[in-house]
Amino acid sequence: MPEQKKMVEAITPMEDDFAQWYTDIVKKAQLMDYTSVRGCMVIEPYGWAIWENIQHILDKRFKELGHENVSMPMFIPESLLNKEKDHVKGFAPEVAWVTMGGNEKLQERMCVRPTSETLFCDHYAKVIHSWRDLPKLYNQWCSVVRWEKTTRPFLRSVEFHWQEGHTMHETADEAKQETERMLKVYSDFCEDKLAMPVITGRKTESEKFAGAEATYTVEAMMHDGKALQSATSHYFGDGFAKAFGVTFQGRDNSICHPFQTSWGISTRIIGGIIMTHGDNDGLVLPPAIAPIQVIIVPVSQHKPGVLEKAEEIKNRLKDRFRVRIDSSDQTPGWKFAEYEMKGVPLRLEIGPRDMAKNQCVLVRRTDREKVFTSLDGLEDAVEKQLGEVRAAMYQKALERRESMTYEAGTFDEIKQIAAEKPGLIKAMWCGDPACEEKLKDEAGVSSRCIPFNQEHISDKCVCCGKPAKQMLYWGKAY
Amino acid sequence: MPEQKKMVEAITPMEDDFAQWYTDIVKKAQLMDYTSVRGCMVIEPYGWAIWENIQHILDKRFKELGHENVSMPMFIPESLLNKEKDHVKGFAPEVAWVTMGGNEKLQERMCVRPTSETLFCDHYAKVIHSWRDLPKLYNQWCSVVRWEKTTRPFLRSVEFHWQEGHTMHETADEAKQETERMLKVYSDFCEDKLAMPVITGRKTESEKFAGAEATYTVEAMMHDGKALQSATSHYFGDGFAKAFGVTFQGRDNSICHPFQTSWGISTRIIGGIIMTHGDNDGLVLPPAIAPIQVIIVPVSQHKPGVLEKAEEIKNRLKDRFRVRIDSSDQTPGWKFAEYEMKGVPLRLEIGPRDMAKNQCVLVRRTDREKVFTSLDGLEDAVEKQLGEVRAAMYQKALERRESMTYEAGTFDEIKQIAAEKPGLIKAMWCGDPACEEKLKDEAGVSSRCIPFNQEHISDKCVCCGKPAKQMLYWGKAY
Repeated sequence: MPEQKKMVEAITPMEDDFAQWYTDIVKKAQLMDYTSVRGCMVIEPYGWAIWENIQHILDKRFKELGHENVSMPMFIPESLLNKEKDHVKGFAPEVAWVTMGGNEKLQERMCVRPTSETLFCDHYAKVIHSWRDLPKLYNQWCSVVRWEKTTRPFLRSVEFHWQEGHTMHETADEAKQETERMLKVYSDFCEDKLAMPVITGRKTESEKFAGAEATYTVEAMMHDGKALQSATSHYFGDGFAKAFGVTFQGRDNSICHPFQTSWGISTRIIGGIIMTHGDNDGLVLPPAIAPIQVIIVPVSQHKPGVLEKAEEIKNRLKDRFRVRIDSSDQTPGWKFAEYEMKGVPLRLEIGPRDMAKNQCVLVRRTDREKVFTSLDGLEDAVEKQLGEVRAAMYQKALERRESMTYEAGTFDEIKQIAAEKPGLIKAMWCGDPACEEKLKDEAGVSSRCIPFNQEHISDKCVCCGKPAKQMLYWGKAY
Repeated sequence: MPEQKKMVEAITPMEDDFAQWYTDIVKKAQLMDYTSVRGCMVIEPYGWAIWENIQHILDKRFKELGHENVSMPMFIPESLLNKEKDHVKGFAPEVAWVTMGGNEKLQERMCVRPTSETLFCDHYAKVIHSWRDLPKLYNQWCSVVRWEKTTRPFLRSVEFHWQEGHTMHETADEAKQETERMLKVYSDFCEDKLAMPVITGRKTESEKFAGAEATYTVEAMMHDGKALQSATSHYFGDGFAKAFGVTFQGRDNSICHPFQTSWGISTRIIGGIIMTHGDNDGLVLPPAIAPIQVIIVPVSQHKPGVLEKAEEIKNRLKDRFRVRIDSSDQTPGWKFAEYEMKGVPLRLEIGPRDMAKNQCVLVRRTDREKVFTSLDGLEDAVEKQLGEVRAAMYQKALERRESMTYEAGTFDEIKQIAAEKPGLIKAMWCGDPACEEKLKDEAGVSSRCIPFNQEHISDKCVCCGKPAKQMLYWGKAY
């Protein structure tokens, strides 16, 4: 099987060069292509199909929870962006500005939306009048633009796709509950559907979203020990509502400002899936979002009845699973390597000898063990194997995260761990941004989050030694 | 029922002011809202749900035909736009230019895509190498920007949503077949799903897409007799492929240029649905794309068991139909008017007297006839009524189109009809663009299309009297 060897050789092992391994996978699994547009990519059919599967699952969930989709303009006039001072300070330096329409200079320039709080507030100010109009639970699927200097496929690009939910509530409590509820939607999605173990918690003041009162985050650990912020959920209080004049008549007839949230997950998560589950043979995709869940490879396909049998199996499976046959004239070995590269969770081999025994062979992408399976009740067997793939992926990622999570009690300890061991570090913090700054500058780690799940590591701040308030996760991040 | 009266009064009758009638509907049915962004709109939940239903039907059909979705950048560098001369001539005057990224002036300005032929070609040049790579059948759902001077909700806006398919083929014949196949997908969709009778044909040279060899169109007639171009499908030959250096090794090992198509339908079609089917009570939505297909209105809902029965009916219907109950404390009369305004195809009334008879009342939006229906076999009865709504909508629109379509043999005739009778005019043409220009200038009608379904009106060009080549549809258009 020379082709197989050739393909496997084509990926740089992650131990040699993690960044190159990542780039090799996104290109060779045909997830994306570079373009002549700075920092923007083509998401190719296989990559976009992953995003469509993610969209499908989340969109259904959002709607079950009462959210409605809308579409806001892609442009924000400068005066609108300027209305909330923290927000504009955070985003103005990284937006793309439209200054000409056709041949005419615009009287007021507009940016391409980096996020849409301002547009939603501008609209909400017009449509919210009474407490009966609340809550407003809107979401949109779109792309946004942030003028990043350094870009990497999926992880950081000038244009990226996401969904952004923007909600308005009658009370602060209700808005806070929405913020937490949507964070839970994301963390459940990451764990159940993407097989990614995640840490949930709150961002520190210096890491929170521009204009938010509180930012909550879902953090995952990548193969190389770095953290990836996988989704965020923000609580805004009534700050934007005040800046944009969003008011409603309350139950007691008084004029009130509503309380706001926003929450989002982006195509960045595709980078997270690659770096959580991929290996040196390529992508490993969680079954829930894999464009192909089962690839059928006919063996000795020129022999009578093999292709027909493969087709029959496909037809049995296609209503329950995303299944495809590769009956091209490539060798089985080439096909095995190709679909391993593409991360297909389950391979189904069928040849004359299997047919004689009324069986087929199922091979999991995760451990490549051959499972000889009767064709009777095949549908349930496939379901079970896909479940096992998900479970194995989750377990492996969890064990890695645990083995790469450390505790530090003192500044010297955290500095040494950060220098020598890739991963996350649990350490106490006094709450002073100066300590956070010092850890970033001198130990090279930033605060990832204040986890909901608190542990007691020591009584003292890992940086200054003063009494500690909370345990934080610290680390390097994408 | 004072509320009902009030709501009905709130729409300007279409006979009084068609443009205002249209604006009243889009606002009062809550399809969209204006924004502080010039020429851009918010598409509100009810409007966006219509678009999602359209997307869902078409996306499924495209995929059945082998198309794959991708995502291209939203920006086009100026040098890329300039590569195909007819294309840039057509689009450069109406694009939005990004000239600044953050605080820095860009070395090369970029436009926000008005359409993506250039981006697809740039990508295809990299991924097409051999005849084995063909056909490439890509599509994307996105928004595009055209710097229109005068805008109207859905019909013409600076930003609009659409899908754009871009395909590459080994032979000219295959590309032409694709162009026609996709036009047929659109015309079937308009007729079967949107209940809009359409005329299909080819655009004249002066009306074709910038850079295309041939443009095919689906034309529908609105209430006021004006035509709406509802979808288009273009054949490009190998012009773009040559300009962008897209080549492949053919079966005989020679280096060839592939042949290209593109095709699209946009949120403009929502304007077409409104102006084809709407009436003075509001929107009338085709069942296939209505966000709510059946609205259940409980009558005497405070009486015991009514709301429970309504809920039971909803649960019976919800797997087959998009169904909702309005159990708010508004009067039934208010609700009737509200959901008529929103164009819900079928109303289901259920009250104590109906319950006693094991029946409910179905009321079609189209003719408002009360159909007393047994609760036994209700699902099939609802299906049947929705089918009748669609059929009645189609028939009514077809009869109107026929009654507003005229024939003209001479210049005086066409001028007189154009001046006096709103509608379409069938007339012969010699093929000279000068006659087309003269008809536009002096009779105020433009060529809508050269229909596939040709008829013989006379032997002579309606304009110059020279021998005619083809019959065309002429008219005013949105």
